[in-house]
Amino acid sequence: MDPTDPRTHHLGFARVDVDRAARTGDPEVVLGQGKSPSQVVDLLSALHEQHPDRAVLATRLDPAALALVAERLPTAVVDEVARAAVLGPPPAGRGRVLVLSAGTSDAPVAAEAALSVAVHGAAVARIDDVGVAGLHRLLAVRDDLATADALIVVAGMEGALPSVVGGLVGVPIVAVPTSIGYGASLGGLSALLGMLNSCAPGIGVVNIDNGYGAGVLAARIARQSGSRDEAPGADR
Amino acid sequence: MDPTDPRTHHLGFARVDVDRAARTGDPEVVLGQGKSPSQVVDLLSALHEQHPDRAVLATRLDPAALALVAERLPTAVVDEVARAAVLGPPPAGRGRVLVLSAGTSDAPVAAEAALSVAVHGAAVARIDDVGVAGLHRLLAVRDDLATADALIVVAGMEGALPSVVGGLVGVPIVAVPTSIGYGASLGGLSALLGMLNSCAPGIGVVNIDNGYGAGVLAARIARQSGSRDEAPGADR
Amino acid sequence: MDPTDPRTHHLGFARVDVDRAARTGDPEVVLGQGKSPSQVVDLLSALHEQHPDRAVLATRLDPAALALVAERLPTAVVDEVARAAVLGPPPAGRGRVLVLSAGTSDAPVAAEAALSVAVHGAAVARIDDVGVAGLHRLLAVRDDLATADALIVVAGMEGALPSVVGGLVGVPIVAVPTSIGYGASLGGLSALLGMLNSCAPGIGVVNIDNGYGAGVLAARIARQSGSRDEAPGADR
Amino acid sequence: MDPTDPRTHHLGFARVDVDRAARTGDPEVVLGQGKSPSQVVDLLSALHEQHPDRAVLATRLDPAALALVAERLPTAVVDEVARAAVLGPPPAGRGRVLVLSAGTSDAPVAAEAALSVAVHGAAVARIDDVGVAGLHRLLAVRDDLATADALIVVAGMEGALPSVVGGLVGVPIVAVPTSIGYGASLGGLSALLGMLNSCAPGIGVVNIDNGYGAGVLAARIARQSGSRDEAPGADR
Amino acid sequence: MDPTDPRTHHLGFARVDVDRAARTGDPEVVLGQGKSPSQVVDLLSALHEQHPDRAVLATRLDPAALALVAERLPTAVVDEVARAAVLGPPPAGRGRVLVLSAGTSDAPVAAEAALSVAVHGAAVARIDDVGVAGLHRLLAVRDDLATADALIVVAGMEGALPSVVGGLVGVPIVAVPTSIGYGASLGGLSALLGMLNSCAPGIGVVNIDNGYGAGVLAARIARQSGSRDEAPGADR
Amino acid sequence: MDPTDPRTHHLGFARVDVDRAARTGDPEVVLGQGKSPSQVVDLLSALHEQHPDRAVLATRLDPAALALVAERLPTAVVDEVARAAVLGPPPAGRGRVLVLSAGTSDAPVAAEAALSVAVHGAAVARIDDVGVAGLHRLLAVRDDLATADALIVVAGMEGALPSVVGGLVGVPIVAVPTSIGYGASLGGLSALLGMLNSCAPGIGVVNIDNGYGAGVLAARIARQSGSRDEAPGADR
Amino acid sequence: MDPTDPRTHHLGFARVDVDRAARTGDPEVVLGQGKSPSQVVDLLSALHEQHPDRAVLATRLDPAALALVAERLPTAVVDEVARAAVLGPPPAGRGRVLVLSAGTSDAPVAAEAALSVAVHGAAVARIDDVGVAGLHRLLAVRDDLATADALIVVAGMEGALPSVVGGLVGVPIVAVPTSIGYGASLGGLSALLGMLNSCAPGIGVVNIDNGYGAGVLAARIARQSGSRDEAPGADR
Amino acid sequence: MDPTDPRTHHLGFARVDVDRAARTGDPEVVLGQGKSPSQVVDLLSALHEQHPDRAVLATRLDPAALALVAERLPTAVVDEVARAAVLGPPPAGRGRVLVLSAGTSDAPVAAEAALSVAVHGAAVARIDDVGVAGLHRLLAVRDDLATADALIVVAGMEGALPSVVGGLVGVPIVAVPTSIGYGASLGGLSALLGMLNSCAPGIGVVNIDNGYGAGVLAARIARQSGSRDEAPGADR
Repeated sequence: MDPTDPRTHHLGFARVDVDRAARTGDPEVVLGQGKSPSQVVDLLSALHEQHPDRAVLATRLDPAALALVAERLPTAVVDEVARAAVLGPPPAGRGRVLVLSAGTSDAPVAAEAALSVAVHGAAVARIDDVGVAGLHRLLAVRDDLATADALIVVAGMEGALPSVVGGLVGVPIVAVPTSIGYGASLGGLSALLGMLNSCAPGIGVVNIDNGYGAGVLAARIARQSGSRDEAPGADR
Repeated sequence: MDPTDPRTHHLGFARVDVDRAARTGDPEVVLGQGKSPSQVVDLLSALHEQHPDRAVLATRLDPAALALVAERLPTAVVDEVARAAVLGPPPAGRGRVLVLSAGTSDAPVAAEAALSVAVHGAAVARIDDVGVAGLHRLLAVRDDLATADALIVVAGMEGALPSVVGGLVGVPIVAVPTSIGYGASLGGLSALLGMLNSCAPGIGVVNIDNGYGAGVLAARIARQSGSRDEAPGADR
Repeated sequence: MDPTDPRTHHLGFARVDVDRAARTGDPEVVLGQGKSPSQVVDLLSALHEQHPDRAVLATRLDPAALALVAERLPTAVVDEVARAAVLGPPPAGRGRVLVLSAGTSDAPVAAEAALSVAVHGAAVARIDDVGVAGLHRLLAVRDDLATADALIVVAGMEGALPSVVGGLVGVPIVAVPTSIGYGASLGGLSALLGMLNSCAPGIGVVNIDNGYGAGVLAARIARQSGSRDEAPGADR
Repeated sequence: MDPTDPRTHHLGFARVDVDRAARTGDPEVVLGQGKSPSQVVDLLSALHEQHPDRAVLATRLDPAALALVAERLPTAVVDEVARAAVLGPPPAGRGRVLVLSAGTSDAPVAAEAALSVAVHGAAVARIDDVGVAGLHRLLAVRDDLATADALIVVAGMEGALPSVVGGLVGVPIVAVPTSIGYGASLGGLSALLGMLNSCAPGIGVVNIDNGYGAGVLAARIARQSGSRDEAPGADR
Repeated sequence: MDPTDPRTHHLGFARVDVDRAARTGDPEVVLGQGKSPSQVVDLLSALHEQHPDRAVLATRLDPAALALVAERLPTAVVDEVARAAVLGPPPAGRGRVLVLSAGTSDAPVAAEAALSVAVHGAAVARIDDVGVAGLHRLLAVRDDLATADALIVVAGMEGALPSVVGGLVGVPIVAVPTSIGYGASLGGLSALLGMLNSCAPGIGVVNIDNGYGAGVLAARIARQSGSRDEAPGADR
Repeated sequence: MDPTDPRTHHLGFARVDVDRAARTGDPEVVLGQGKSPSQVVDLLSALHEQHPDRAVLATRLDPAALALVAERLPTAVVDEVARAAVLGPPPAGRGRVLVLSAGTSDAPVAAEAALSVAVHGAAVARIDDVGVAGLHRLLAVRDDLATADALIVVAGMEGALPSVVGGLVGVPIVAVPTSIGYGASLGGLSALLGMLNSCAPGIGVVNIDNGYGAGVLAARIARQSGSRDEAPGADR
Repeated sequence: MDPTDPRTHHLGFARVDVDRAARTGDPEVVLGQGKSPSQVVDLLSALHEQHPDRAVLATRLDPAALALVAERLPTAVVDEVARAAVLGPPPAGRGRVLVLSAGTSDAPVAAEAALSVAVHGAAVARIDDVGVAGLHRLLAVRDDLATADALIVVAGMEGALPSVVGGLVGVPIVAVPTSIGYGASLGGLSALLGMLNSCAPGIGVVNIDNGYGAGVLAARIARQSGSRDEAPGADR
Repeated sequence: MDPTDPRTHHLGFARVDVDRAARTGDPEVVLGQGKSPSQVVDLLSALHEQHPDRAVLATRLDPAALALVAERLPTAVVDEVARAAVLGPPPAGRGRVLVLSAGTSDAPVAAEAALSVAVHGAAVARIDDVGVAGLHRLLAVRDDLATADALIVVAGMEGALPSVVGGLVGVPIVAVPTSIGYGASLGGLSALLGMLNSCAPGIGVVNIDNGYGAGVLAARIARQSGSRDEAPGADR
């Protein structure tokens, strides 16, 4: 196998696609799942060298990978709840995304979504624990919801939160089912089906636990919506 | 085949169980599905003769069966929305059940549930079109919900209504998923899974479109709860 | 049942929610599925009278309903491919949505999506028959894709089109799986799963054959994105 | 994040909802699944301080959490079979619930159900090992069944026990499928489907292994049924 | 195509396998599903001519096929409930099979099973309407069950009857799930799973609604068990 | 709880049913799954004391349980492949069962089936590695198959072996799907479906990996078939 | 819509891809499903005019479409069993494909496969009714199997035929599951899973009932294999 | 059990089928899954001694088995990525197979496929990381694709790659879904369904992660296609 061949793996184990940002306007991303900690570090470094002025995101990192990134790449920002890391300066935030989550157990997915939004160039804030079994908490933040350019709604179990939110405001909603639940939750399929069958229209659903995918979509929506520039990540 | 044998089919095609009320305190019921209109009429008549002082309920009747019952049993009460009929005097209502439904399309199941409650001896009222995408309608009736002895909550699509109701009041809830929806609603499985995975506790789920089963359970709960005697079926 | 009660069905069979537009900024919608042709006509009329200056959309109309709408509401626009009708003036289009479809059989869903976009206030155009088995057709319109504010991508069978489009441009994508296919397509589940598992991020998925839901989401995205005002529905 | 904001996480990782009892009449509950032992202890303590006169229940505790609760909260009652703990005085029992289980392996779910009943304010007793393959054991306790205000029926494998019990007595039944079984039991789905399709009406089903949810529903039914005050948990 | 070739279709549309009886000791069978009435008649005639001294069974006949068989083959025995027909003399019955069914709606499958038993050479009797929600009916015939050489147990919905029967007697049981039920019965899958997961051992399950397959298996078991010769088909 | 009460757990954790043999003619069985090694030993001992003249079978034993049984009950026969143990004298074999298996990986299930047959009173022999991809091996033993009173056919993956065997001989067949396979074998569901849909009639299917259940059924069939007394387990 | 635009629908309702043959070497194909009879005729005509020297295939034609093609395109060859039609001269056959089918009911799929092979340029022959429950028929043609360049194996129910054939010869096998079966055949999923899990390697599976797809693949394999030219379609 | 009996296990735990090559032209294969490292080594040795002039392949080896093979069989070639080993001289390659994979995580399956091709007698090369979200990489190698005798296309997630490749070239395609993905990828079922429902014809699908089966089929196709003899595995 010839390393000068354009079809060759650049790092021995992965063909790095450095032109993606040019095509889609997004940063490079390393999916940590199935990669060793040192592979994650090497990929982050290689992509960072290609574009030192742009953030690189690594997701689905296990504790060992998070630790090695922290040790070997001290300038990287490591988010242990989101199981993710960022290397390089994040872009300025344009537009604003609000991430809602139903329960405490949904936090890792909500955190991955929020971090992905920030790295993809939109401002982001979070509101947690607003599940539908305690409506008063959700109704208390209703005015906040209406001011966002896009909402990410994270919920497991029956996945009903997007339906309720979709009945309150007309903001574009990206719904993320989580694998939280037991028994007939079927690893998140119950929440996924609930969101797809929502009686409120205007909801786009991503894969189970896919906070990253939700963050990319919401950031793209918010970026092109926001004439108003906002400070990034003013988390509440 | 010996017609005097206690194991024999009384009507040639079905073994009628006339002792059921003695065992469970419930009226006799004829499941119309898969039976011809004349079989339905004959079964209703036979059961009515055994217990002229008690109501007999027939469910899942197709239009032809409803018509033949109306023609041949003029004292029967025929409910076309519920696709059901009652022959004989309903019992006095003890306790009170409220039937909530999410959307217009859930009406047949809600009607079957309400009729089943009445025939099984509890008072019943209905509140329709209080789906979760329009919370203000549900919140407007919140005080009513808390006064019932049991709630039947009927919903299709994502089946989120029981979760929201279960977060508002502590009344026993019987949830009925309906087959209303399309695509990934999977004939009601999505609503069923949503209700089983509800983040609010205290919800018992019955089979898809099973208004009858929900009515039986809710009536049993209400009957033993109600010291207060109420007029039957004061439907709103 | 008291017709003055605010919880009462206005038309005898459905509680009309005339405040929805105020809450979400969207027009009223009548879901035709499970309603009789005359119920559809009555609902369209009632909603149109409430808001004569705003369009009302009716979807999932069977041929009899389409015919009765055309006969009784001559000012309504009837779209037979989309199985839908619009009564009242559509809003001016703000922002621009492009609807892509993979095959000829996906046309009804693509048409419902396009009509829904237009009624919800964004300009819309369609590009059909750009399935992944004939990449040259898709690549020929690549530049067009990048100029839209939102893309709706409609596909059945394996549902691969959103993945390929998502690799070409960074525009927000709303993916609609259709029930087109046979055997193991499982009524559209195969396409749905394909879209949810897309290797390209930034894709929000709606229910199978849910052109309406996709149209609402895409229009909301485009409306808030478009500073540039465009002529509505310049269909190609 | 402002800790004085009413929407803030009180304990850093979870928003405690201390008003729930006021709304539904139930005690506070900590779902241990996915929480660390020290998080469980902290939540139990915090909720107990808010309402020292009321019991707090923690469920789904792993051995480490059970041990830490026993060590750090010596006044807590720890039930190792139920994998649960209670802190604070249980309410007086009103009404009476009987918990039936089909086999030895169903004991943890039956124990969680029984404990949940007691903490939610009803008296409770258990009858175990009355599976349908040994009918004589079930028939021997038939009279006991008829005296309860509510029955919780716990079974795995084919989940047939609620059908048989439902044919014997007219008491409201809450059915709990368990994940006991192998092969085509599909992690409890077989028992769940069996209970949903029961040929006996009057059965409400909860999620697989959800003893807690069954206990809440049964206690609510029994509490409002019981004029007769009974000693709590006589059989336990 | 050479009609003298042993691999050729004898009747133009089906290769008749006349050696099957020699291999397995069973009669020839025509599966009517998907065949035209005249094809059914032709196949019955052809097989009868090959073995005029042996019965030929045709199953899954629609009304048109049943009518044409009755008209064109007047010596055939047509069973309209079983949707089946027999041409030629049935064998003497050796051993005895009892067919139990849970509900009235299971009659067609029970009838197909009973007819298949008789044609395959064992005596057969039926006991109907002994579903588990009315145990007293089943317990009344318990002694009969123990005297059979094989039991066929037919049930839909939750499919619990084989479990209960299997706990009463040690006779080999062939369980037949039926597609009777609605909602989450999933076309008989619920009953099928219930029977496969039975807590009573010694139960062999056949496909949904497969009365024929159950009849073949039970007849084979009974034939080799019965030293006692019995009169065929003394139906009760 | 009163230990003299007939409903009490005899051993503190399980209600032992010592009357089962009287009802069904079968030995007592301990299902080891979910029981501790010492619980298994105690149950085996207790049952053996009740019926010292009869064998007791324990199945689904993990290595620790197998070791403790061997250590504490030296007269027990421990079968490590079958993951089972027998305590007490096996009955004389009446009738003869042949256990066929498709591949090497099916051995544990085949061994459990064979041991269960022997303990339930029939002679048993095994023929392994006769999968359908190597027909010559199966055809070489065809004459043996025809001489058995019952066949147990064990296969994973596509589960085709029962169909082929069922086309060769008319002996009653008990089919056991195994969880052997990968990918779309879905933990044995593929083999299970294959066996249920067999084009050869006369096949009863048991649950995935349920060698025990197959053994019980086959032994019952063989016992009542065999006038010819045979030496037990000649091939083993 | 501009008809001169290369992205335009040529016939108003479908974008005809006339360059496909140049890309893949295959003829044009019209999928009849969901198209009106006159649309089918128009598409066949248009494609035939583009390439009068090459065959055009139309599949999945309903009786009305078959009739209209026969009437309006008298030179077309109409195959009623295959529900397909061919217009234009078929290519000379290179290489040889053998189509095997398990049962009579599989004939339509086998016929579609055979016709597709012929139109895609390979010789083809068929052997029917060689299901695994009658092995002698399959073994009688074993030598024929080994001489083909590719085998198409069509089977419903348990789908075991490819496994058995794959154990007999080393020829590339294309397996086609059919929707033939009932109950737990799940519309062909059982056969599909059986074929995917075959214990014999070297089998490629296509979608349920997809005779066309199998024909294309087998013809491509045979064409490039066959140095020996053979007469097309010498069907047996 | 008599070791001279042809039905006996040769190695105590497996019946070795040394005649397979004679029947199908393929080498012997040891499936390592479920076998101990020493069993793997013994089987490889035994098969190698029978045919020292032919390669033996062992697949699905865990690290311990790979290590023991390397230690005890120093002449074996061990491929750690493919989790496989080969003992004995591979055959000369005839015809040429190209293995494409969509992502880095698909490498183990692609490696198993490539090794299987080589051992089954065809030349093989690989092109990795050509997933559909980066079409330019795939289009860059389009000419290479058209020169192969068979393509193996390996992809997880939505499994769209075969559809796109099938639209580019007319070479026979063997598609391998992998279990790469998360959430609703359902362990590879999403990719499997995507490939079965491909809108491009001419694709045969094998089981999830079944690189071996794909290699066998592709090698068989290529061997009989290649008149042109090529050097084996040029790209590897």
